[in-house]
Amino acid sequence: MDLGMIGLGRMGANMSERLVRNGHRVVGFDPNAEARAAAAGQGIEPVPSLEALVGSLSSPRALWMMVPAGDVVDATIAELRERLDRDDVLIDGGNSYYQDTLRRSEQLAEQGLHYVDCGTSGGVWGLREGYSLMIGGEEAVVERLRPIFEALAPAADQGWGHVGASGTGHFVKMIHNGIEYGLMQAYAEGFAILQHKTEFALDLHQVAEVWRSGSVVRSWLLDLTARTLETNPRLDGIAPYVSDSGEGRWTVAEAIDLDVSAPVITLALLERLRSRDDDSFADKLLAAMRNQFGGHAIKKS
Amino acid sequence: MDLGMIGLGRMGANMSERLVRNGHRVVGFDPNAEARAAAAGQGIEPVPSLEALVGSLSSPRALWMMVPAGDVVDATIAELRERLDRDDVLIDGGNSYYQDTLRRSEQLAEQGLHYVDCGTSGGVWGLREGYSLMIGGEEAVVERLRPIFEALAPAADQGWGHVGASGTGHFVKMIHNGIEYGLMQAYAEGFAILQHKTEFALDLHQVAEVWRSGSVVRSWLLDLTARTLETNPRLDGIAPYVSDSGEGRWTVAEAIDLDVSAPVITLALLERLRSRDDDSFADKLLAAMRNQFGGHAIKKS
Repeated sequence: MDLGMIGLGRMGANMSERLVRNGHRVVGFDPNAEARAAAAGQGIEPVPSLEALVGSLSSPRALWMMVPAGDVVDATIAELRERLDRDDVLIDGGNSYYQDTLRRSEQLAEQGLHYVDCGTSGGVWGLREGYSLMIGGEEAVVERLRPIFEALAPAADQGWGHVGASGTGHFVKMIHNGIEYGLMQAYAEGFAILQHKTEFALDLHQVAEVWRSGSVVRSWLLDLTARTLETNPRLDGIAPYVSDSGEGRWTVAEAIDLDVSAPVITLALLERLRSRDDDSFADKLLAAMRNQFGGHAIKKS
Repeated sequence: MDLGMIGLGRMGANMSERLVRNGHRVVGFDPNAEARAAAAGQGIEPVPSLEALVGSLSSPRALWMMVPAGDVVDATIAELRERLDRDDVLIDGGNSYYQDTLRRSEQLAEQGLHYVDCGTSGGVWGLREGYSLMIGGEEAVVERLRPIFEALAPAADQGWGHVGASGTGHFVKMIHNGIEYGLMQAYAEGFAILQHKTEFALDLHQVAEVWRSGSVVRSWLLDLTARTLETNPRLDGIAPYVSDSGEGRWTVAEAIDLDVSAPVITLALLERLRSRDDDSFADKLLAAMRNQFGGHAIKKS
């Protein structure tokens, strides 16, 4: 079928390429001319504006947004909604906060437009292995988009699912990312202990490889960890600074809102915050308190 | 080759069966007559005593212990050491604490016996899929046992590794299990949040299945979680009580000993401790304090 892709960054370009390989027609828009040129080389039809994108597809249209969560999504919707026709579908495949999705979905429904949220996992590997898709929206509309989901997923009947009404796709993806924080932190801590046991002189890449086959901790994240440890076992050139893009903090806020205790996911987020603070006020204050009550030496900065 | 298996419980019996299927001769001892009879049905030669086990193998022998960590290992060694000949190998495939392994290895070396520690992961699925084996001990002795490791592992060149000197196999397995605690807790918390979002009426089994293909959180533990949620999505009949068998607490103690902060693994252990306390003294005291300073109501027991 025909699809308009909005955003030809790493994710949008790869997903478009996977759709083209599966016989779909993809018209793609990105404000960046280089991104459009690269997409053209992969069989995507590039257009220089949202107006041209809408004009190049016939109604009922399917437009997929793969843009950064937040204001860009609202700005894109604002520019599109005047140009779209009743029964067109707009899909948000990014990591939007599900409460934003609920709001946007209601707004678009007022003018007869359908809004589908699709939590998309798979990163840069999705082009080859397929994406895991968590989809929220109206049943009939999701069904209309089935050929797209079947092509993006690892297999037609695997890795994608219509999990509920509008907002549920992004909700499930948010929790997916919260879990991801906890998994990553658990591996990171375990390998750190192994690395600090210097008397055993363990080969961390070898350990990761042994665990990849048959062990209880085998996973895709472990596969990626093994790749890193193979080429850079001492993690040279990598600063101990971990970013986040929101889903972890939303997960923690949601857990608290639901009165659910999710300590490990929460702590995994806090460890990321701590990784960015190399001049901790709290640590200084602790050192000062120890000095006050016990005369313990303070390490000078 | 010939191997003596000590302990024909779930793990020992399955491992013996996998060895027999791969053409090895396994003589097996278990104090339980039923376990011996079951093993006989799988091509294992059962014997009723350690003495008979030693007698049924010619030197240099290879004996594999698959018994509970702790006193049983020491008792088994005490009974065996008088009966073994120089250059025989004793393998501990259980979850022994690596410091115990270092001690036992030294003791046995005094009389010319070799001790090999093999951290074994794979659980009840190992029979079919193979085991992940983390092996510590002398190079030449591990090499002598290569046919056994190649048969137990998922493939001859996968999932097993000689990670270092005596004790390192159990050390690496200990950290493996610490990581496992963290991974399990992260999934558990994530699914708990999904389950509490009742307005979305999510199908947790469907979500797990979607994540199994193409997502960043795909793993073997997720595969098992999906199996549980398929047949018992509400977890009927399962008490919220989580046991541990030591590796988690050893991992936490080791991390502290090495001055390594491993908060998520630690917290995953603490969550297990908390799961077993349905009459928390600390929670009662918190309720009492709130009542003292703010007159907040106490829920009566």
